[in-house]
Amino acid sequence: MVAPPRLVLDGWYLAAFSDEVGRTLLQRWICNRPVVFYRLSDGSVNALEDRCPHRRYPLSLGRLDGDVIECNYHGYRIADDGVCVGVAEQPDQPKASTVRFPLVERDGLVWIWPGDPAKADPADIPDTWWLSDPGWTHVQGSVGLKARQILLVENLLDLTHETFLHPGSIGNAAVAATPIDVTSDTRSVSFTRHMIGIEAPPFYQKSMGLTSPIDRWQDGDFYAPGVFVLNIRLAPTGTEEPDGFHMKVLYGMTPATDTTTHDFFCLGRDYKVEDEELSAFQLQQQLAVMKEDIDALEVQELMVATDPGMIESSIRSDVAGVRGRRLLDKMAKREAAAEAAAAPARPQRPAAAAAPAGVAAP
Amino acid sequence: MVAPPRLVLDGWYLAAFSDEVGRTLLQRWICNRPVVFYRLSDGSVNALEDRCPHRRYPLSLGRLDGDVIECNYHGYRIADDGVCVGVAEQPDQPKASTVRFPLVERDGLVWIWPGDPAKADPADIPDTWWLSDPGWTHVQGSVGLKARQILLVENLLDLTHETFLHPGSIGNAAVAATPIDVTSDTRSVSFTRHMIGIEAPPFYQKSMGLTSPIDRWQDGDFYAPGVFVLNIRLAPTGTEEPDGFHMKVLYGMTPATDTTTHDFFCLGRDYKVEDEELSAFQLQQQLAVMKEDIDALEVQELMVATDPGMIESSIRSDVAGVRGRRLLDKMAKREAAAEAAAAPARPQRPAAAAAPAGVAAP
Amino acid sequence: MVAPPRLVLDGWYLAAFSDEVGRTLLQRWICNRPVVFYRLSDGSVNALEDRCPHRRYPLSLGRLDGDVIECNYHGYRIADDGVCVGVAEQPDQPKASTVRFPLVERDGLVWIWPGDPAKADPADIPDTWWLSDPGWTHVQGSVGLKARQILLVENLLDLTHETFLHPGSIGNAAVAATPIDVTSDTRSVSFTRHMIGIEAPPFYQKSMGLTSPIDRWQDGDFYAPGVFVLNIRLAPTGTEEPDGFHMKVLYGMTPATDTTTHDFFCLGRDYKVEDEELSAFQLQQQLAVMKEDIDALEVQELMVATDPGMIESSIRSDVAGVRGRRLLDKMAKREAAAEAAAAPARPQRPAAAAAPAGVAAP
Repeated sequence: MVAPPRLVLDGWYLAAFSDEVGRTLLQRWICNRPVVFYRLSDGSVNALEDRCPHRRYPLSLGRLDGDVIECNYHGYRIADDGVCVGVAEQPDQPKASTVRFPLVERDGLVWIWPGDPAKADPADIPDTWWLSDPGWTHVQGSVGLKARQILLVENLLDLTHETFLHPGSIGNAAVAATPIDVTSDTRSVSFTRHMIGIEAPPFYQKSMGLTSPIDRWQDGDFYAPGVFVLNIRLAPTGTEEPDGFHMKVLYGMTPATDTTTHDFFCLGRDYKVEDEELSAFQLQQQLAVMKEDIDALEVQELMVATDPGMIESSIRSDVAGVRGRRLLDKMAKREAAAEAAAAPARPQRPAAAAAPAGVAAP
Repeated sequence: MVAPPRLVLDGWYLAAFSDEVGRTLLQRWICNRPVVFYRLSDGSVNALEDRCPHRRYPLSLGRLDGDVIECNYHGYRIADDGVCVGVAEQPDQPKASTVRFPLVERDGLVWIWPGDPAKADPADIPDTWWLSDPGWTHVQGSVGLKARQILLVENLLDLTHETFLHPGSIGNAAVAATPIDVTSDTRSVSFTRHMIGIEAPPFYQKSMGLTSPIDRWQDGDFYAPGVFVLNIRLAPTGTEEPDGFHMKVLYGMTPATDTTTHDFFCLGRDYKVEDEELSAFQLQQQLAVMKEDIDALEVQELMVATDPGMIESSIRSDVAGVRGRRLLDKMAKREAAAEAAAAPARPQRPAAAAAPAGVAAP
Repeated sequence: MVAPPRLVLDGWYLAAFSDEVGRTLLQRWICNRPVVFYRLSDGSVNALEDRCPHRRYPLSLGRLDGDVIECNYHGYRIADDGVCVGVAEQPDQPKASTVRFPLVERDGLVWIWPGDPAKADPADIPDTWWLSDPGWTHVQGSVGLKARQILLVENLLDLTHETFLHPGSIGNAAVAATPIDVTSDTRSVSFTRHMIGIEAPPFYQKSMGLTSPIDRWQDGDFYAPGVFVLNIRLAPTGTEEPDGFHMKVLYGMTPATDTTTHDFFCLGRDYKVEDEELSAFQLQQQLAVMKEDIDALEVQELMVATDPGMIESSIRSDVAGVRGRRLLDKMAKREAAAEAAAAPARPQRPAAAAAPAGVAAP
């Protein structure tokens, strides 16, 4: 058994699309914890650990009374900051609370910070201007993946797999045959792959009316721990930037548990932005391609989980993926060390409420 | 992961209803062990560990030959005391046996003692006179619960949950709003909740024709490790005892495994004892209410099992539940200490049979 | 929990029937490892660990290009000796390989050696001449068993179970009542059971037209770690060898994982070898009998896996089974000791490929 790596908690993960969060309580697992998402009466999003501080019953099965969640098991009332403000029908006022997570809503996306809230800086969220720019349009969605997050990260950081897994849509020989240039820093890994004068893959022939030869750029940015943006440019060979067709695909690779992952995507384009038929086609194509990846990654998860310790081989096209993996390893080790140094690892958890006066050993 | 607590073995657990046990071998798991239940030719009930001492095949898949079970794998014949009395078709007479459990049958219930048989005293079984009293009638049944037993114990010892989980049937605001008085000793925890001049919940309006205001008593007795009896009295406000409607609900909370539990019930009443339509209604209502509890407890099990170590908050209405939990903790610790002190922990298991003469290393 | 025993790896296991292996890649788990089976262009069979040395993706999902498997995730090309000979569409030539297993094809069977290849001697494969002898015919097949291999071994080495599990087909009282003679050496255990002047079981009455009394011989040979051959002779009482009806049943008991097992069989006969209706009847009967065994063994697996430590009783009819178990124990212990003494336990695994020049920490 190859145990899944420790998850990185100090980072902004994509948690939901704005239109998924409203006045109906939504449970979603993030980094091994159940989280309840909802909107406060002022319209802002809120997220708490989805366990009542009384007996751990999911708050998401309770009801929203203004900005307070009333637990449906015994009536604990939890305010938006996670603090218990009383118990329905009872005079008790327990000193108890659950964790509130830092959240940011921007460009139709809801971002969560599962780790130490003192380190949560909204400036670290990747720029997604194109999701709200009138010159762009996009489709979006998500699928569930029964595999550890790192396999998805490495899948996206080595796009040579398109040649083999996705030959009928976005892949062809040129992808694997064109080397990448890689740069990285302490929070990100980027690569560029500029394919010049190549044949147009089927997906792009249909959606853009391109005929070969074309230039195809795949410039990828991995923002650790869980975001990847692929910047795509396609144009007849020789066209000068900024002309050409541009697409961007943002992936939110958010661990649900150690071995399950949310795979969110937003696929945007700067051409034919009014063409709804094209949007429907792109959504269907994107989901078909992701299905091929999901199937492959779930098989790979089994192969990895059951392997007693094979040492992998890597080649040039793995440079971005290997750096991404090392970056996550380093971040996880840093968090583990910080956790070992300081006793209380879980953020925002107040001291346990004292036992009530009447509760004594019999 | 919050591991489930060690189960208490020294105690009488409800194992079956009398009409479930006959000449057909019945397998039921009790406290992590498979047990085979059956009736001897004199009509008495019997229970053995459901593993043949030969190769552990379930005796319950064998056949009953008089009072002997013949194992259907290789023909070991096991008498009612668990001792092997021969092997069908073969001359061998192995010295082997399986565990026989202390059993008591009373008032239509079969009780089992999974622990040290030397400590099994039938006088410790809760009195269930009302199950065979002609002035009473009852309905009964059981459901399977995929949760640790302690969650069911705490569910029943804090009935304020009726207000939230069961508002359409037996719960209303008065339950949560009325405090309890709690007493306890070394084997039991009792509480009384007397609601005076309250509105009648839907369930009781229908079954008794009561109109508000009424007096409603909920007097609960938890007999550790696994029995709870709720004594209910309903009457028009001001009626003197012993007048009024009386009901009793016995719950057998019997661990099947560490994380699954049998939830038996007998619901009795001392009014309209001939009314079979009312009995059918009460059975259906009771099962509907228990379904709401089962659903809640199975969700809670997941929340508890996946929690790395939340410290719970407790209030006054938890006093009975917290005392119940501590009582079980104390009993389990005492058994663990006794087991550590004495080597052979499993009762009634004789020394292993010696290898047969012909069996030698090659 | 009784953990399953360590699997013996140094031994020939039946892996497949010849007609299962061709130019379509076949994945089958053998001793906790995924293996890909296929036929080379010269017609010979080949087997590799079914993990690409790049990112562990199953090679069996790739495509066969001549005698090279091209991985369908990123294009690694693996030759029949397991060595990577390049990466499709890329100039890299990684030094990487996966394990190739010793294989032997003989009499329509494919044998694999999952352990140390230096110890693999084809002379140790049990003789199966009767599978290709014109005086014999046979039917064959396999079923999946969700139980540890040792339970199947013991099932076959103690045929007294036929009396109880298979009374409607091949079992009757005589089997359990007739003692066996047992011999064994360092690699095998054999027993003989000669039943003289007994009643003919239903299966044989129908397939041979035999009427009682008959002589029935059951001479079994267990070739550790995973082959059992039952030599059956039936004849009217008093008939002299070599007259009479002869049957042989070869069982391949090949661990898939610690708790799942492939149960292969070949059932041969030396009479009515042209009778296809009889062959169809024998196949159907054999599968029906094995279904009874599978059902029993899967229940037994649960009983064994959940047992905290019962000590089994054994009798004379267990002598062969107990010797078989001890033989496997001894072989497994020897392998564990050898593994502990020498660091690299996995055969044929070359040193890990060095990281490519471009792969450095960011």
